[in-house]
Formats: sequence, C-alpha cells, structure tokens
Amino acid sequence: MAAELVHAGAVDRGLAYGDGLFETMRAHGGRLPWWPRHRARLTEGAARLGIAMPDEAKIDAALADALALAARDHRGDAVIKLLLTRGVGSRGYAPDEGAEPTLVLAVSPLPSISDRGLVVDLLDLRLAVQPALAGIKHLNRLEQVLGAREAAARGLDEGLMADGDGFVTCGTRANLFAHLDGRWITPPVDRAGVAGIARGVLLEQWRPDGGLHVAPLRIDDLSRVEALIVCNAVRAILPVARIGARELRARPDDFTQARAALAASHPAFHES
Amino acid sequence: MAAELVHAGAVDRGLAYGDGLFETMRAHGGRLPWWPRHRARLTEGAARLGIAMPDEAKIDAALADALALAARDHRGDAVIKLLLTRGVGSRGYAPDEGAEPTLVLAVSPLPSISDRGLVVDLLDLRLAVQPALAGIKHLNRLEQVLGAREAAARGLDEGLMADGDGFVTCGTRANLFAHLDGRWITPPVDRAGVAGIARGVLLEQWRPDGGLHVAPLRIDDLSRVEALIVCNAVRAILPVARIGARELRARPDDFTQARAALAASHPAFHES
Repeated sequence: MAAELVHAGAVDRGLAYGDGLFETMRAHGGRLPWWPRHRARLTEGAARLGIAMPDEAKIDAALADALALAARDHRGDAVIKLLLTRGVGSRGYAPDEGAEPTLVLAVSPLPSISDRGLVVDLLDLRLAVQPALAGIKHLNRLEQVLGAREAAARGLDEGLMADGDGFVTCGTRANLFAHLDGRWITPPVDRAGVAGIARGVLLEQWRPDGGLHVAPLRIDDLSRVEALIVCNAVRAILPVARIGARELRARPDDFTQARAALAASHPAFHES
Repeated sequence: MAAELVHAGAVDRGLAYGDGLFETMRAHGGRLPWWPRHRARLTEGAARLGIAMPDEAKIDAALADALALAARDHRGDAVIKLLLTRGVGSRGYAPDEGAEPTLVLAVSPLPSISDRGLVVDLLDLRLAVQPALAGIKHLNRLEQVLGAREAAARGLDEGLMADGDGFVTCGTRANLFAHLDGRWITPPVDRAGVAGIARGVLLEQWRPDGGLHVAPLRIDDLSRVEALIVCNAVRAILPVARIGARELRARPDDFTQARAALAASHPAFHES
C-alpha cells in the first residue's frame, strides 16, 4: 500500500493522539441490552476529556445502522465497537474546542469462546498509574497491546496486569474478581484500568447480600487467591483454571450465580 | 457529518489503540536536515512496540511526496508529520504479527513563533511513569492533550509536566533545559517524556566541554531554577521569561550558543 499524503488539518485526533474513547458491545437478537451502561461510561469519558458528546439522535441512528449490519451478516449476534474521537483538528496537542467529534461504528463476528478454564499469569509489564485517565475507556491502549503481546508470547489465555505500585488491577481485556481470604473482591480502577460494564453489573447484582467488595489485590496476594474470574462485556465471565502452574478452585456455585446475575440483564449470557 | 460504519477488520490500529508512532519534522529549503535522527528514533520506537519498519525506499518516496507538497504550498518551509501505525487489524489488542504498517504523511505551515520569552508554570496534571513507553514518540498522547488544555485554560504559553513521583520531565510539546545550582541540566526521559531530537542535538553539541548534564529536576527545584529553555524540532529553542509569577534570568550568551549548536545541524534555526 502506498503511503497516504494529507494536509495536517485532515488528520483525525483519534489517530494522531488517541484522543477519544470507545465502547465494545455485545449485540444479541439485534439489540444492545447494556447500551445504557455503555452510554453512561462514554458520557463520563467525554466529560473527563472535554469531548462534546454527539446528539443522542445521531448516536442512535449510527447504532441502528450497526445493528442492521449485524443482523444482515451475523444474525444479530455480533460485537459492535463504537469509537468517538475529538474529531479532525489542526496540528498540535491543544484541542480546537469547536471541533466536531468523529463517530465510527465497527461490526465484527463474535469471538469463539471456550468453556475451559483459562490459564493466566502475572505479566512483567506494569500499568502506569494515571488517575486522570483511569476508569474510562479511552483510545490510549498501548499498554494493553504490549500486554497482549507478552501474554501471547508466553502462551497465556490472558495476562494479569499490576500497576507500578504492585496492585493487580485487571487483565489485558478484562476485569478481575478474586476469591481471597474467604471473600470475593474486585480491584479498584481509580488509578489504572477500566471500569468494565460486566464488572459494574456484577458489583450491583451478583451478591446483593454484601459478599463482594472493591478492594486492592496485591501481587503478593496472588499466591493466596483461591478462585479467579475474568469478565468483560463481550465474553461475560470466564473462570480461571490456573495462575501460572498453580491450580485454582472452580467454585461452581459462585460462578453459576455470577453468570445468572449477568444473564438477568443481558440475555446473551444465559447458560447454553 | 454522518457516522462511519465499517467492518471491524477495517479499523486502523493507530485509531483503535494509538498503536503506532510519529515524528514531527521541520522542513527547510525543501529538505529535512534532521531526518536521520528522526528515523533513528522511529526505528527504536518500532522495535520497542514490535512494529515492522517499512522499507526505506517506501519511506523515502513518501517523504519526497511530502516535500513536494511543502514546496508547492509552503515554499519548502513547513512542518511534516510522519505517522507509522501497526496497520489495519482484526478486533482485539493482540496484534496480528503479519500486519502491514500504515504510513501517513501530513504537511502543515510553520507555526508562528514569537521571540518573546514564554510564560510557563507547573501543571496540576501529572505524567504517568511508564518505562516501557518512555522516550519514544508513540501515539498515546492523551496526557499531552490534557496538559495542553490545562495550559491554555491557565493562559500559559507552555505547561511544565512532572511525573507522579515529583520529577519535572518536559513541557507538553517540548523538552526542558534548566540552569540550576550553577549548571545546565535536562531531565532524563527513561520513565516518562520523549527523547526529543533538538534535545539530542543540544546534548551532543551545545556544551562539548561537559557543562551540561542529564539530571533529575524536582518540583521543589523549580523555585531555584535561574534560567529555563524549552526546545523541540519545530520551534528549536525558546527562552522562558517566567515560571508562574517569578522572573527568570535570560542568560543571552548561553542562549545564543545553544541556538548556534542547533543551527550548525539544521539551517532553519540560524538567527534571523
């Protein structure tokens, strides 16, 4: 392919600086059951970055187009990715506050999801601590790309990512729920990581009795973790079989209850 | 503008994840005098990220096209930005190791550069510490975007960025040289920041007698900085007049020598 030659004012800031946000969503039966949650996170991210949210009608029309494509090509069950950037702008980091945001919708087939427990391990790569960007799903994802490369090179199904202060925060593409010292915890995402949609549903609906806590998970704690679940909005929850060479417990009752909590709000995640 | 609807495999990873690198270069007289230095940094960045460098002939042809556009529209004096991404890829962070990189060249007019000393101050935003990405000029630049927004909101010509450990590292778009405790220093860029091209030239050629050191600059040191210079490959060096309300010394002899060191390797930076 030849190189592209453009005037600098024509480069989208999403490409130039990763100046934008995205949402990766599981469509089911031609609908996006968790769209209100994705929209809320997108809105918070836009506010944090100072990006104007497009009109709701424009987003709805774009989602309808994406769902139509998903219906035509994938019988309505697909992954729909929404990208929102600050738009096309002149050269330089300082944004033109009047720029019109760019909206891109991308449709892809569902990934194949195995039922077997995952093999994970702590990656060598550390996440940088950046409270200004933590929690939101922005487009600066080189750490996840490098983490996924390391996980693939080590033959792992998923890599566990700790931050520079030694707190295990997430997988490269998933949040974590760990059974540690007799209780379920999920790490906070206010210094690194993303506030995952499936994580949010589980926090609200999995253990309404209070048996689930947002609490730090240190690297040293990994040797005592009894059970581990990874989750995201496409694959829902998957159990972890091993951290490195160490076998974990399955806790099938807990896993079934967690999946039921997700299925209650997203019908794609009913047990098959 | 309507939203764009694509198949996920058609989204460039530069847009999806900031998965790429860039160089911003000052063309002069239809040439890029510092291209070998920019190419060396690009090559190091590509190696760090595991992105295949395009053939030299392909890059040379793309640069020739960009220089032709700069000659036609800007009499050969322009800013040429080169973007290199990992290319178009399927959904997911893990890269397809066979992807063909994307090369984009963007040409823009020179910015207006004032001769007056700059007003700078320490930004509230902190840089994240990430040795895996420090030094290279990758596309994950949200910290610079947020920093530039903060600087603009505070009416600053440039914002000084410290990392989360309290080390002042750079401006939002420039490296720093500070005269502190009787000597010139420039902060290291191995935990955050970019190894700027003009910085590299100055380190080699400004004070060959050894009167220039790579050394940490702490936030507390800012109150003792006697003189400050910011530099990048487009604007070369600019003196700082004030840090916040505090006036700095000009040290015109040092400034003239530094500019001469740059001009010796890039004729755009001769004193006018």
